[in-house]
Amino acid sequence: MTTTRPDPLPSWKDGEAKSAIIDFVERVTSKGSAGFMSPAERIATFDNDGTLWCEQPMQVQVFFLIDRVKELAAKDPAMKGRQPFKALLERDLKTLQGLGKQGLLELGFATHAGMTEEEFGHIAQRWLATAKHPKFQRPYTDLVYVPMQELLAYLRSNGFKTFIVSGGSIEFMRPWAEKAYGIPPEQVIGSQQDVKFELKDGKPVLTRAPKIAFVDDGPGKPVGIYRSIGKRPILAFGNSDGDWQMFQVTAAGDGPRFVGIVHHTDAEREFSYDRASRVGKLDKAWDDAVAKGWTIVDMKADWKRIFPWEP
Amino acid sequence: MTTTRPDPLPSWKDGEAKSAIIDFVERVTSKGSAGFMSPAERIATFDNDGTLWCEQPMQVQVFFLIDRVKELAAKDPAMKGRQPFKALLERDLKTLQGLGKQGLLELGFATHAGMTEEEFGHIAQRWLATAKHPKFQRPYTDLVYVPMQELLAYLRSNGFKTFIVSGGSIEFMRPWAEKAYGIPPEQVIGSQQDVKFELKDGKPVLTRAPKIAFVDDGPGKPVGIYRSIGKRPILAFGNSDGDWQMFQVTAAGDGPRFVGIVHHTDAEREFSYDRASRVGKLDKAWDDAVAKGWTIVDMKADWKRIFPWEP
Repeated sequence: MTTTRPDPLPSWKDGEAKSAIIDFVERVTSKGSAGFMSPAERIATFDNDGTLWCEQPMQVQVFFLIDRVKELAAKDPAMKGRQPFKALLERDLKTLQGLGKQGLLELGFATHAGMTEEEFGHIAQRWLATAKHPKFQRPYTDLVYVPMQELLAYLRSNGFKTFIVSGGSIEFMRPWAEKAYGIPPEQVIGSQQDVKFELKDGKPVLTRAPKIAFVDDGPGKPVGIYRSIGKRPILAFGNSDGDWQMFQVTAAGDGPRFVGIVHHTDAEREFSYDRASRVGKLDKAWDDAVAKGWTIVDMKADWKRIFPWEP
Repeated sequence: MTTTRPDPLPSWKDGEAKSAIIDFVERVTSKGSAGFMSPAERIATFDNDGTLWCEQPMQVQVFFLIDRVKELAAKDPAMKGRQPFKALLERDLKTLQGLGKQGLLELGFATHAGMTEEEFGHIAQRWLATAKHPKFQRPYTDLVYVPMQELLAYLRSNGFKTFIVSGGSIEFMRPWAEKAYGIPPEQVIGSQQDVKFELKDGKPVLTRAPKIAFVDDGPGKPVGIYRSIGKRPILAFGNSDGDWQMFQVTAAGDGPRFVGIVHHTDAEREFSYDRASRVGKLDKAWDDAVAKGWTIVDMKADWKRIFPWEP
């Protein structure tokens, strides 16, 4: 880089991916350039699991569910013999992966039905404060990708509004997304449990119903973006086929567009997976990215540092 | 007012309502005061119909629907004899009011099923550019309340984030809410038609399905706020029982809270209605406001000016 300004993406190695990002941002923010976009148009959407933090060997929310079912089974031992709880309690990842995202969401929502949103929030926050990732033996909220944190901050400093658009459920992400990514609750879009307004001892509460209201994954992502943003993103980042429709919608707009894919290539520092993976499978979106010239970020080659604890 | 700063609410007469608003804003923004709230907590939610613009003799979206059905009936004359289209075409307001908000939404959604969001947006914008209100003979987008525009701007200049939380449908409000109120599409929460992601001639589109996805009215408003904001508002403004649950949720939070109700008392400059009205009925929320000391704005007494065209 020949610029004298400080490097906005210090954890990114110089290379095609980094240049493509910086070129795009400079293009859409240069007044008078053909590609200039007003700040109101600078909408950037990010998948969460596998794009902003680690999603292997299973999404963090699944580990949360395992521990929750353990707690509940201590009070109701019959659960231990019943599927899918049995698979959860035995950390039978293959069976769990076979349920798919929707099946896992349904299971999580059923497990937490009847409680208020506030109660659920406390339980999730307590768990996140103490639980540890099986490989890294660190709190899950440490498993955020530093290069992506830098990218989010860089975009915001250039007038972008950054959103999470995740298959995970909103109330599981919102308590920590602001601290981890600088993204406030009102910019976290995700899957949703049905909730009902009630008065409980005269106090208005939202109670969780045992029903999915919305699955923000795959073809659901453009719907979630439409519902909560109402504008087409000009930049989208994801890592799997669950983001493919979000990529398509982003790329289909007029003017400059940026689609980025985090490719998990670093088995040593993180995990290595793509086409054959059940969690975070990257197959069709990859082919499309190659055909359309979208930016593929090679974690091993493009990132100097992945996690915050690395030197 | 003894302050030397310019009056932030020049269209409001000095009085209890204006003082209550200014006192609240000064209290939550004064660093070191017991009531100080950080900018992230300064969430303000506003009903739209009857709170930010005129909703009589029917909500604007109903007039839109009448004109749309007229267009469609010109191509399919059999519609003219069928209810509820007959009532629409004959501007039989009593029958229409009897359908309730959900019934009217369903009718609107059925009428526009099958088209893409983009196509619907063009139709709505075209209509708003030409249609005129039956009493005022002006474009509907002229029927915004100047004192409320001032209030929105005043709140934003004090670090508040302003949201619309309306029973109307999002795609009908978003095209003009930013110009009229300074509220961008991503801060417009409302009722929603079910939409489906599809590829149409290789182009990704969202197609409107003939089904309601969400009714953002009454007990739906706290749900809409939860889904799209994820924080409890510290200020809410509305004008009818459809806002009552939003008021309750707002008032139930810790720290300073402001609940405001626009009371339609000016039959000459606008309309006069409350407990007995089918559109914008204000009854239970009014009783609750009196009991709890919420702020009731008397349009006739408290507003010097209502509409932008007034001197």
